[in-house]
Amino acid sequence: MKCKRCRRADAAVDLPSHHAAFCPACFFVFFRRQVTEGIRKQRLLVPEDRVLVCVSGGKDSLVLWDVLIDAGYETEGLYIDLGIEGYSDRSKEKVLAYAASRGKTPIVVELATEGVPIPEAARCARMQECSVCGTVKRYFFNRVAAEGKFTVVATGHNLDDETARLLGNLLHWQRDHLARQHPLLPGADGGLVRKVKPLWRVSEVETAAYGFLKGIDYVTEECPMSEDATSLVYKEALSRIEDRMPGTRIVFYQGFLDPSNPLRKRPETATPEDAPGADAAHRTEVAAEGGEGTARTCVECGAATFTETCSFCRLKERVRKARSLRATTVSR
Amino acid sequence: MKCKRCRRADAAVDLPSHHAAFCPACFFVFFRRQVTEGIRKQRLLVPEDRVLVCVSGGKDSLVLWDVLIDAGYETEGLYIDLGIEGYSDRSKEKVLAYAASRGKTPIVVELATEGVPIPEAARCARMQECSVCGTVKRYFFNRVAAEGKFTVVATGHNLDDETARLLGNLLHWQRDHLARQHPLLPGADGGLVRKVKPLWRVSEVETAAYGFLKGIDYVTEECPMSEDATSLVYKEALSRIEDRMPGTRIVFYQGFLDPSNPLRKRPETATPEDAPGADAAHRTEVAAEGGEGTARTCVECGAATFTETCSFCRLKERVRKARSLRATTVSR
Repeated sequence: MKCKRCRRADAAVDLPSHHAAFCPACFFVFFRRQVTEGIRKQRLLVPEDRVLVCVSGGKDSLVLWDVLIDAGYETEGLYIDLGIEGYSDRSKEKVLAYAASRGKTPIVVELATEGVPIPEAARCARMQECSVCGTVKRYFFNRVAAEGKFTVVATGHNLDDETARLLGNLLHWQRDHLARQHPLLPGADGGLVRKVKPLWRVSEVETAAYGFLKGIDYVTEECPMSEDATSLVYKEALSRIEDRMPGTRIVFYQGFLDPSNPLRKRPETATPEDAPGADAAHRTEVAAEGGEGTARTCVECGAATFTETCSFCRLKERVRKARSLRATTVSR
Repeated sequence: MKCKRCRRADAAVDLPSHHAAFCPACFFVFFRRQVTEGIRKQRLLVPEDRVLVCVSGGKDSLVLWDVLIDAGYETEGLYIDLGIEGYSDRSKEKVLAYAASRGKTPIVVELATEGVPIPEAARCARMQECSVCGTVKRYFFNRVAAEGKFTVVATGHNLDDETARLLGNLLHWQRDHLARQHPLLPGADGGLVRKVKPLWRVSEVETAAYGFLKGIDYVTEECPMSEDATSLVYKEALSRIEDRMPGTRIVFYQGFLDPSNPLRKRPETATPEDAPGADAAHRTEVAAEGGEGTARTCVECGAATFTETCSFCRLKERVRKARSLRATTVSR
C-alpha cells in the first residue's frame, strides 16, 4: 500500500480511525499536526511559554517532549524517581539518554531522598500505590514548576488515557470528576501552575509508532504497581470497540469536550456564568486536596491547599510516624 | 456454598453484582422482587393495566411474560413473525408452546402477510435489516395495542440491552437518543400507547437463569440478521468490565436515570420546566418518525405521525414498488 499523503513511498503506519496510511516522513507531519491542532483547539500553549515536561521514561512523555522541542517550545524535562526497585532505574536511564540526545539535562526529584518512595509510602499510609503516586506527582509537578518559573506543566496523557478515564467517570457518573476532566487546567492564585495534556488527540498506537519511527528508546514495561489499575480495564474495553469501529475514541472525547455538553458543568454550581469546564476544573482539583472554602498556603511547605497542611505534607508525616514507630519496635 | 437468603439449600445462582448467591426458590423471590422494584421505582405499571407483552421467543420476553402473569397483571402476548427463514418458525414454536403452558393464545402478526417480511423489505428499501425491523415492530406494537384497547406495551429489554444502548449513545454523544432512552415512554395523544421495559434492573445472566430454572423453553440462537449489530460490541465491552467490576452496569444505568442527570434533558429545549426524561422522550420518539411540528394521523393507515404518511406505510410502499418493478423486468 502506498502512503495516502505523498502517494510515492510505501505506507508504514496504518490508521483506520483516520482512513489513512502513511510513510514514515508523512506520518511525522501528520502526527505533529495532530498535536499542534490539539494545542491550538484547546489553547493549551502560547509561543512564549516555558514548559515543564513531566517525563516518566515511557513512550508518551518522551514523544511529547520530542514534539514540543521540535515545535520550538522552550522546555525542560522533570523526572520523578518513584523509588520502585528496578523499574525506576530502568526508566531514569531512558530519560537521561533521551535528554542527552537533545542536549538536555532533566530536573530529577528522588522520592527516596524526599522521604516518600512510593512502595514504602503506600504501605505506611495504607493507601493504594496509584493514589499515593498521584498525590506526590501532582505536588512535585507544581512545586518544581512554580520554583523554576515555568509557565506551564505538560504531561503525556494521550487519547487512550483520557477516554479510559472518561469512560470510568461516566460508568459511575462521577459528576465532579467529569467537570474536572479537560486537557487544560488553568493556573490559579496561590501558586497553581497551568497544566496541559498536548497529546489528547493522538492515540497510544500513534504515539508508539512515532516513538518507534523516531528511534526514541523508552521503557516498554508497565509500572509494576499499576497491574490491577481499573483504568486498564476501561482501556481494553475501548480498544475492542475502537478495533471494530475505528474513530470511536476521538468522537467520544471531542463530544465530551464540546462546550454545549452539560456534563462540563459542576452539579452544584451549574449556572449560565459557569465556564464550560476548564475554570471549574482547577477549583475542583484544588478542592480534591480534601478541604473546602478559601485557598490558603500549607503551614509546612507553603503549597496551595484548602486545609492547614497540604495532602503531600500529611502523607510525609504519616510515613515519618510509621518509620519512627518501626524504629522503636525494632530497638526494643 | 449455601444460599445467602435461606442459608439452608445449596446456592444455584451466583450473583457477584449483588454479593449474593441463591438457591432456586430464593432466586425466584429475588428476581421477581428486582422486577417489581423496577416497575415501582419508575412507575411503569398500575394494577389495572391491560398489558400487551411483545414476545419474540427469546428468553427475555418469555421471562417477562412469565413474571407479569405470576405478578397478577392482565396480559396478552404479541408475536411478530418477521419472516426470517428457519429462525422465525423456531421462535414462533417456542412462543406458542410457552403460551399454551399458561393457557394463552398469543396474537400473531405475520409480516409476510402484511407485505413486509424483514429480509425482503430490507433489500427493497436498501436499509439495514435491524433498522427496518425496528420500524416495523414499533408500528405493530402500537397498532395492536391501540386496536386491542391495551393500556400499555411491555418489551423484554434487560439491563444489558439498556446499558449497551446507553454506552453507544454516550460514545457518540447522541443527545436526542440519550434524552429518549428510558424504561418508560408515556402514552400521547394520537393513539400512542405507553411503552415500558420492566426488566431494566435485571441482567441477561439473571434472566437466563430465571428462564432455565423455571423450565421455560426459548430460542437460544441470536437473530441471524443481527450478527454484525454494533450493540453486541458494546454489550461485550460492558460484559468484560462487569466481570472485573461486578455491579458496574446497574450503577451506570441508575446514575443515568437519576433526574438530576443533565443528559436527561433534550439539548435544544432544556429548560427548568423540562421534565427529566420521560415526557420529552416520547415526543422525541414520535419525532424520530422523520418529521417535525404537530402530530397528525397517517393518510394511509391512521397511525400517529409527524409526516403525511407514517414511516411504516412509506416502507411498505417502497417494497410494493420494488416488487412491481421486478415483476415487470421478469415478464419482459
